[in-house]
Amino acid sequence: MQAAISIPANAITLRRLAAEGLGTMALLAIVVGSGIMADRLAGGNVAVALLANAIATGAGLVVLITVFGPVSGAHFNPAVTLVAMLRRDVSRGMAGAYAVAQFLGAVLGVWLAHAMFAAPLLQVSAKLRDGSGQALSEFVASFGLILAISGTARSRPAAVPAIVGLYIVSAYWFTASTSFANPAVTLARSLTDSFAGIAPDSAPAFIAAQLAGAVAGAAVSHWLLQDKAVS
Amino acid sequence: MQAAISIPANAITLRRLAAEGLGTMALLAIVVGSGIMADRLAGGNVAVALLANAIATGAGLVVLITVFGPVSGAHFNPAVTLVAMLRRDVSRGMAGAYAVAQFLGAVLGVWLAHAMFAAPLLQVSAKLRDGSGQALSEFVASFGLILAISGTARSRPAAVPAIVGLYIVSAYWFTASTSFANPAVTLARSLTDSFAGIAPDSAPAFIAAQLAGAVAGAAVSHWLLQDKAVS
Amino acid sequence: MQAAISIPANAITLRRLAAEGLGTMALLAIVVGSGIMADRLAGGNVAVALLANAIATGAGLVVLITVFGPVSGAHFNPAVTLVAMLRRDVSRGMAGAYAVAQFLGAVLGVWLAHAMFAAPLLQVSAKLRDGSGQALSEFVASFGLILAISGTARSRPAAVPAIVGLYIVSAYWFTASTSFANPAVTLARSLTDSFAGIAPDSAPAFIAAQLAGAVAGAAVSHWLLQDKAVS
Amino acid sequence: MQAAISIPANAITLRRLAAEGLGTMALLAIVVGSGIMADRLAGGNVAVALLANAIATGAGLVVLITVFGPVSGAHFNPAVTLVAMLRRDVSRGMAGAYAVAQFLGAVLGVWLAHAMFAAPLLQVSAKLRDGSGQALSEFVASFGLILAISGTARSRPAAVPAIVGLYIVSAYWFTASTSFANPAVTLARSLTDSFAGIAPDSAPAFIAAQLAGAVAGAAVSHWLLQDKAVS
Repeated sequence: MQAAISIPANAITLRRLAAEGLGTMALLAIVVGSGIMADRLAGGNVAVALLANAIATGAGLVVLITVFGPVSGAHFNPAVTLVAMLRRDVSRGMAGAYAVAQFLGAVLGVWLAHAMFAAPLLQVSAKLRDGSGQALSEFVASFGLILAISGTARSRPAAVPAIVGLYIVSAYWFTASTSFANPAVTLARSLTDSFAGIAPDSAPAFIAAQLAGAVAGAAVSHWLLQDKAVS
Repeated sequence: MQAAISIPANAITLRRLAAEGLGTMALLAIVVGSGIMADRLAGGNVAVALLANAIATGAGLVVLITVFGPVSGAHFNPAVTLVAMLRRDVSRGMAGAYAVAQFLGAVLGVWLAHAMFAAPLLQVSAKLRDGSGQALSEFVASFGLILAISGTARSRPAAVPAIVGLYIVSAYWFTASTSFANPAVTLARSLTDSFAGIAPDSAPAFIAAQLAGAVAGAAVSHWLLQDKAVS
Repeated sequence: MQAAISIPANAITLRRLAAEGLGTMALLAIVVGSGIMADRLAGGNVAVALLANAIATGAGLVVLITVFGPVSGAHFNPAVTLVAMLRRDVSRGMAGAYAVAQFLGAVLGVWLAHAMFAAPLLQVSAKLRDGSGQALSEFVASFGLILAISGTARSRPAAVPAIVGLYIVSAYWFTASTSFANPAVTLARSLTDSFAGIAPDSAPAFIAAQLAGAVAGAAVSHWLLQDKAVS
Repeated sequence: MQAAISIPANAITLRRLAAEGLGTMALLAIVVGSGIMADRLAGGNVAVALLANAIATGAGLVVLITVFGPVSGAHFNPAVTLVAMLRRDVSRGMAGAYAVAQFLGAVLGVWLAHAMFAAPLLQVSAKLRDGSGQALSEFVASFGLILAISGTARSRPAAVPAIVGLYIVSAYWFTASTSFANPAVTLARSLTDSFAGIAPDSAPAFIAAQLAGAVAGAAVSHWLLQDKAVS
């Protein structure tokens, strides 16, 4: 892959990619693991399960972004990396390498959750998440995520971890899709037939809506928050 | 409208109004969307539904105020804008324009929630919220909101987003009305026949109590917290 | 009352007493109001009701201490005021006036909650909270509260509101008494026959344990955290 | 014990050990006490019970680390102390004394919880927590805890209390073991036959996995976060 060849293969780059991979792995272990735990304990009360899932994910995200942010920027999300690339904050080569680390980490995170809960490692989700409401939800979730990150990074950078965590807690509930907002997360969640799963057939529409929402969010952020242009 | 004519039609003003409109739209999408999600999943356990609704709203508010505060002040609420006008922090013309943006954004936010959850866009609530306890609750909720904002803005301005979010989480529970505390929110929530709705017949008493509570809160804040006078 | 005569009757003192009274009133409206709401909605699921009650109280406390702290110190609690007096941070006269404001505010807060929820204003609780486990719980809760406040005030004063809120959320659950930890709160909660109530017969043991726990906490804080001596 | 002899027996050391002992005691009172309360109130809804248990523990940890951190570093955990010793941040003698204080405090905390809830002081848990998923979970939980502490301590030391609290809230849910992540906590929880208990037969595998996870976390932290080497 051209991109992979052009990145400097030094120790700092390795640490950045390791941080993206390990952080995304942890994120998926949190999302899928807490979904399994919540589903097992909730006895059919799905609202309680989703509340636990949302709180665990939001709390975990604050930790992960705080810890890995100083190393790699803590994207954990190809849509966020895409926006950074369009703003020329990271090179195309590094963006590609970030995405590879994110996708690999995400899949490993799902498998780690399965291993912790003594479930078969290799699964495929049967949970269809279809319809225009779902795609619109993912567009909105990703649009909002980029605005939340951009606005906070400009005015209060130390608050980014907390704001992203709070955003996801809220977006689990106010979108009909529970707000995946992340192509690596979406792909990886197609590999678990548990509470957090998504059928592979439903994934492409999610990912397309996420990328569109992220780019739209970056454009609005450029005008409204005077952020860098995307191009 | 006289007010609209007198405001400077430049880019900064446009961004301020866009921030108020987009932020209020997001606020309503959060309140109504999370209400629909919670109601659908809770299986009749209304306390769990309200807990999810409150947490989603509080978390979302912290994000929205952090992101849009530096642009417009993040009022998202005609009662807050009224107090700012009475304190001469914004001109009458700008206050009117803010209110228009807030009401328009609020209605669009309700429709966005309906679209995400694949519900009919145009609805009218049938949920009566009547009685003196409800009006008193809205008076108290708005009184407290103004005191919370004013007190925090004076001594710890960076904490305003968190304090408003925490205030709303608390006020969802300690008032009998679940604390609308916002005329634009009230009007817009009359346009959804879901968990967060309010029958149009109940709205005027809510709005009157909110405006009275906000002005009373500003007066007490002037004396007790040595804030600016309202006049 | 001798104490009331000896305090300077100027505007600053009035504001301090008003802040203590209004803040304690709000605290009780939150505790009792959210208890009524949670109880009505939870349909017998007491754990969900207590979770909502705890979150509403903790969130509300953060707001109240942030807003009124700069005016009065935001004690809202005669046991906290007693420790401040023993440390000679407030005079005996002012401590007495604080306590009067706190007790009056607390009772008014209970009545405000009743009015918001359209319940009879004047009630007496029939909920017995007896036994040595309850008294020990109140001793522990008050001991911990003083340590939490003292330790945070010394090393990170800006974090006091958040720490007190988090402490109470935790203490609702880890003590058998749900952690009243406050004589004014205890007395006032004997005047509501709702979720948060306590039978008048149970109140004296609670209050005695609270005062003992607070003084013990101050003594340990003096040695362990190098705080001011109590005398 | 050689270690105990070599430490300086002065007032500062005494306060450090008292802070570790009292803090770990409080931690166990919170974990076990809130587990008993949640279990009693939840009426079989285990997800609600675990949510309350997790929130109470996370909130309590933020308070304890804020209060005792300036005195002793607020380890409350022999695995954390082990890492500090391997990094030569504390001497071997002091590390041994810390561990003794932590184990003693932990057991006292369980008994305090029993006393508050009027349960027999001396209990032994019958709750088996076995299997490779459980051990892997404890490895992951402890690995993550060390990374969370290390990463935050380097870049944002004031955020350590909040990050540890949020980490534990998340880890209660994303690990199959509910994340003990602490040998003193594990041993002490074998002494309660309540919600938070662990059968003594299950404890050794937990503790071994915790120590391995902590050392692995420190090694990765050294390379990835440029933290001090362990040796």
